[in-house]
Amino acid sequence: MSVNFMTDMDFNEDSSSVDNLCSSTMTAPTIVDVLIIGAGPAGLALANWFRNSDISVLLVDKKPGPTTRGQAEGLKSTTNEIFESFGIGPQVTAELWRLEEIAIWGPREDGGVGIVREQVIQDKVEELGKIRETMLQQSRVEHHMLQNLVPHSNIKIKYSTTPISVNVDITSSHKEKAYPVEVQLDKTQLDKDGIQDNATSDSNLPNERDEKEEVRAKYIVGCDGARSWLRKQLDVTLEGDLTDSVFGVVDIVPKSNFPDIRRVCYLRAATGTILLVPRSDKEVRLYIPVESGSALPDPKDLTFERIIDAARKIIAPYALEVGSVSWWSAYRVGQRVGSHFSRQNERAFLLGDAVHTHSPKAGQGMNTSVQDAYNLGWKLRLILQGHISTTTSDTSPETLLRTYELERRPVAQDLIAFDRGYLKLFAAPSSQFDTEFLRAMKFTTGLSIRYPPSCVVQLPAGCATADDLGPSLLKADVVPGKRLPDFQVVYQADGTTARIHTRMQTTGAFRLIVFAGDIAQHTHLLDKLQQLGAFLADPSGLGPLTSPSSGAVGEVAAVEVLVVHAAERDKVDFLGLPEVYRPWSETAGYDYWRVFADAESVHEGHGRVYERLEIDREKGRDVIVRPDGYVGAVLDLDDHDGVKRYFGVLGMLKGA
Amino acid sequence: MSVNFMTDMDFNEDSSSVDNLCSSTMTAPTIVDVLIIGAGPAGLALANWFRNSDISVLLVDKKPGPTTRGQAEGLKSTTNEIFESFGIGPQVTAELWRLEEIAIWGPREDGGVGIVREQVIQDKVEELGKIRETMLQQSRVEHHMLQNLVPHSNIKIKYSTTPISVNVDITSSHKEKAYPVEVQLDKTQLDKDGIQDNATSDSNLPNERDEKEEVRAKYIVGCDGARSWLRKQLDVTLEGDLTDSVFGVVDIVPKSNFPDIRRVCYLRAATGTILLVPRSDKEVRLYIPVESGSALPDPKDLTFERIIDAARKIIAPYALEVGSVSWWSAYRVGQRVGSHFSRQNERAFLLGDAVHTHSPKAGQGMNTSVQDAYNLGWKLRLILQGHISTTTSDTSPETLLRTYELERRPVAQDLIAFDRGYLKLFAAPSSQFDTEFLRAMKFTTGLSIRYPPSCVVQLPAGCATADDLGPSLLKADVVPGKRLPDFQVVYQADGTTARIHTRMQTTGAFRLIVFAGDIAQHTHLLDKLQQLGAFLADPSGLGPLTSPSSGAVGEVAAVEVLVVHAAERDKVDFLGLPEVYRPWSETAGYDYWRVFADAESVHEGHGRVYERLEIDREKGRDVIVRPDGYVGAVLDLDDHDGVKRYFGVLGMLKGA
Repeated sequence: MSVNFMTDMDFNEDSSSVDNLCSSTMTAPTIVDVLIIGAGPAGLALANWFRNSDISVLLVDKKPGPTTRGQAEGLKSTTNEIFESFGIGPQVTAELWRLEEIAIWGPREDGGVGIVREQVIQDKVEELGKIRETMLQQSRVEHHMLQNLVPHSNIKIKYSTTPISVNVDITSSHKEKAYPVEVQLDKTQLDKDGIQDNATSDSNLPNERDEKEEVRAKYIVGCDGARSWLRKQLDVTLEGDLTDSVFGVVDIVPKSNFPDIRRVCYLRAATGTILLVPRSDKEVRLYIPVESGSALPDPKDLTFERIIDAARKIIAPYALEVGSVSWWSAYRVGQRVGSHFSRQNERAFLLGDAVHTHSPKAGQGMNTSVQDAYNLGWKLRLILQGHISTTTSDTSPETLLRTYELERRPVAQDLIAFDRGYLKLFAAPSSQFDTEFLRAMKFTTGLSIRYPPSCVVQLPAGCATADDLGPSLLKADVVPGKRLPDFQVVYQADGTTARIHTRMQTTGAFRLIVFAGDIAQHTHLLDKLQQLGAFLADPSGLGPLTSPSSGAVGEVAAVEVLVVHAAERDKVDFLGLPEVYRPWSETAGYDYWRVFADAESVHEGHGRVYERLEIDREKGRDVIVRPDGYVGAVLDLDDHDGVKRYFGVLGMLKGA
Repeated sequence: MSVNFMTDMDFNEDSSSVDNLCSSTMTAPTIVDVLIIGAGPAGLALANWFRNSDISVLLVDKKPGPTTRGQAEGLKSTTNEIFESFGIGPQVTAELWRLEEIAIWGPREDGGVGIVREQVIQDKVEELGKIRETMLQQSRVEHHMLQNLVPHSNIKIKYSTTPISVNVDITSSHKEKAYPVEVQLDKTQLDKDGIQDNATSDSNLPNERDEKEEVRAKYIVGCDGARSWLRKQLDVTLEGDLTDSVFGVVDIVPKSNFPDIRRVCYLRAATGTILLVPRSDKEVRLYIPVESGSALPDPKDLTFERIIDAARKIIAPYALEVGSVSWWSAYRVGQRVGSHFSRQNERAFLLGDAVHTHSPKAGQGMNTSVQDAYNLGWKLRLILQGHISTTTSDTSPETLLRTYELERRPVAQDLIAFDRGYLKLFAAPSSQFDTEFLRAMKFTTGLSIRYPPSCVVQLPAGCATADDLGPSLLKADVVPGKRLPDFQVVYQADGTTARIHTRMQTTGAFRLIVFAGDIAQHTHLLDKLQQLGAFLADPSGLGPLTSPSSGAVGEVAAVEVLVVHAAERDKVDFLGLPEVYRPWSETAGYDYWRVFADAESVHEGHGRVYERLEIDREKGRDVIVRPDGYVGAVLDLDDHDGVKRYFGVLGMLKGA
């Protein structure tokens, strides 16, 4: 395996043109925009961002085919929102398993043998308004993301394929034609035991080196897991330590009279602790940390029987027999974060397990991987579709791409810090247990994430930090850098309901959500909505971004305008609104699905959006939502300049 | 085409054995249990009943493949419940379009030109607790039902196949081995225009008569539409008339400033009426009855332009331009019901459009077809799986199968009667309009259906008719012969929710739902539940029906026992209940999903089942639910004899 990162000094060729690249090798290299190493949850989620585009994507994975069994299972509601936005929400929802209750068990207070139930907590965060925590086998999650790519010929997957070298020309700019990433791929080699391992190149198996392939890409993304090959090539180190904790994990069908066997349980006995999580059908998963100390066992020495024996001692006096076992493992937890999440002048990125590892206790692994990908994907898409102009703003593609590390590395660091403290909560429950546990649930759901100010997270003039925004916005969580709270609205045209995160499909578009207020009661609000409409359609206003350009594959407008009013529905004249709010197409008719009311629905109650988001019905507000559902900016209804400034800073207003 | 129904007199062969049948022809005939003619909504729904069984089913359809476009679209919630029970609820739900509001428009009261909105009605029936009315193209409904058959090798489909003759030996009993139905199949012939029509046998196209096939079946079912071939062979006549109404129907993308274009609208102007129904995306469907009278047009003379012109006059002063048109048609409505729904000693059945036709106004066509099939399927399955013994009861398979006509023909007749009266409601809205319209919505949802007493609808001793049951049960709709009202319950084991109709998958099983009352507060109820448990497990009680027999494909217990208690969940000792309520399997573990609480859920509110069904928490009640979700009997909690009587009458208790 050769590794060579070209620098200014040893880079002698002009490789800014594809033709040059092709002519410099014997066989023509494969040219792609994005090369993704690893087709697990992170890689597949990233690839899903490039559906309905003409961006070429190659996913490679050393495995011979899709995963048939993965260890991760937990899916938080915010991850399920991502699947909704990919359009695979119904399939995932149909299969997933819900977790509704958490039981805490502790030792008997009288010092006797055995455990007693201390309390049952609802697995619920009120403001989510939906199921917080669900379970679905990693292989099924991957299946649905993979199936979702099938109709898109711009995205290709090669299994049994391993990268063996990578070069990145860091002098090249992020101009459209530059393919500075050179990668050699090879067919995955099998070792003597038939186990795939490319390190074993002196295998006795037939040498399949003739299946080598050269790839040139604009970007390379390592989604290749905890033992990431790309991480090593990029000289990224994992900072942190292996912990003392050796965990045994078993997936079994239990034969047990333990009454909470179908609830998430934290069991704390004198002899140790168990985290019990119900799986689909009749299985449960048990996590059993083996005590640390001088006699710390090597994970390899742990046997299934020893793990179950430990579990039996903890769960006593309840019985625990094993009906069947479908999987078990033992491992030592690493709590480490990569020194960098991107390298080589933002040409190479690391996502998911490749760049952070932690214990599986809070069910965060698959969620964080998918969310890393969700953060990076739209930024690459925006650049590759040519939406960012470097001539009109200070924001370069590099600046935008740097926000990936800026936003996601602190999340990983917080996760590790959380991971370290989480079990302490259960060690000796205090009087603040409920409050602390609720905070932990919000954290693991991702509701505590707030990305720092940047070109895509813009604070109003006069605000140095998001904390200066004022208590009302902060309370309602409508804060630049935070995920837009999900809410239910009613379509003006037909009275059906929508949830906003499901409505915001991953087209790559930003959304300008115009909370127009009560436009029936207040003429000045209707006037403001009309004026804003004119600005949004104006060629010297936001017009170039709100009307779809034609010709390109699946091209949509860079900014989709949505209106949420607070008026009585039957007092609103839908077709009297400016056309930007209900565009007409000669073939496809009016778009009736951009104007919503914050109103009582026929079958699903009232979303009470204005109340929940603390928006004044007499003033209204604009919220710019990034393609990934995070708030980019919050503005007054008549602050046209503010809207223009947001996209101007990003370099998206070319003529400006 | 030859037609010959053998009778006692001309039947000379012993065809009760398959071997005999095979030896009497040159090529071996195909032997199947059920032959279904027509793979539309009715045929596919019927076939779905035979999944997970060893019953062999052959569907034939003269079309060359699945429908790419059907005219039907309306799906009522009770039909969606059927899809849930088939396991395709999520797929259907993900695609369907909701209808939430109905707008009524009438002529201006001052006699001026134009129409005004009279009122907007919520398309809602409170007690359903869910979306009442949805839209999905027939082809997609068929697609999902078809896909659901693919994994089941006992069910086969042949397209481009037309039946050309049928003989039924009506002397043969419904014993397991008798295959009294003889059918000749042929490859569908194309006429000169390439249109499939088997009547044109003198076509110039190559004669493919060598693809003839002989089929022997136990049962034949005609799901072959309004021009049913089987109906003619069975000498079934359609009773009723073609109406005077000639309808024009258009599916268009409208360019209109009519404000309610995305609502269901009844438009009544001086110049005529329109029924407007929003379709998926931006299309709408308009039904425009052309005035009857002496100048009654022939449907063939109607042009698209003439229909749209008529629509324009009605909708004025609003504009109606056509962005695009995807389909249009004109036809005269027939309102007719078949003289028989089954013939030939219950060996041949007719379903759906084959046996009733009516106007499409109330969106009933696809619903009634699917519901016909849903009524017949489990009865055939029960007999073909050998659950009905004629030696121990007066109920023969014929008696059971006769309930298909007994139950479904009145539904079709009521539908026609309703159809005749429906538009009168809108002709001149009275002060009772809202009440009458709500009644009409309940009717079209199927909530008014009450099947008469029979071997599968049993009234308590002392009740001559269901009306004698008492006001409480009647009010709550827990009445033998009526659909069990759907309700939400919480699983005792894990706190997740279920809706009862979704929970009752189409396994062919009856359900005994034990409403056990508050078993935590009332010891006598817990005692009764224990005693009932003993009876249900007792080999001389209901034991033979509640434990699955082994060996057969997908065999499940004939009666699945479910418990819905009204106690505080944490005061119920799940594993302390008799095993019949939470069976154990050595490989699959406990079945945790048979015991429910009528309780507040973590995320989805309280089902309030006892209140809604008017069940006394201090008394409880047993409800026997048929495999199709209709109530079979309602009994006191300790009426073990009543339970035994129900299944005894049916001949399901062989040892009794």
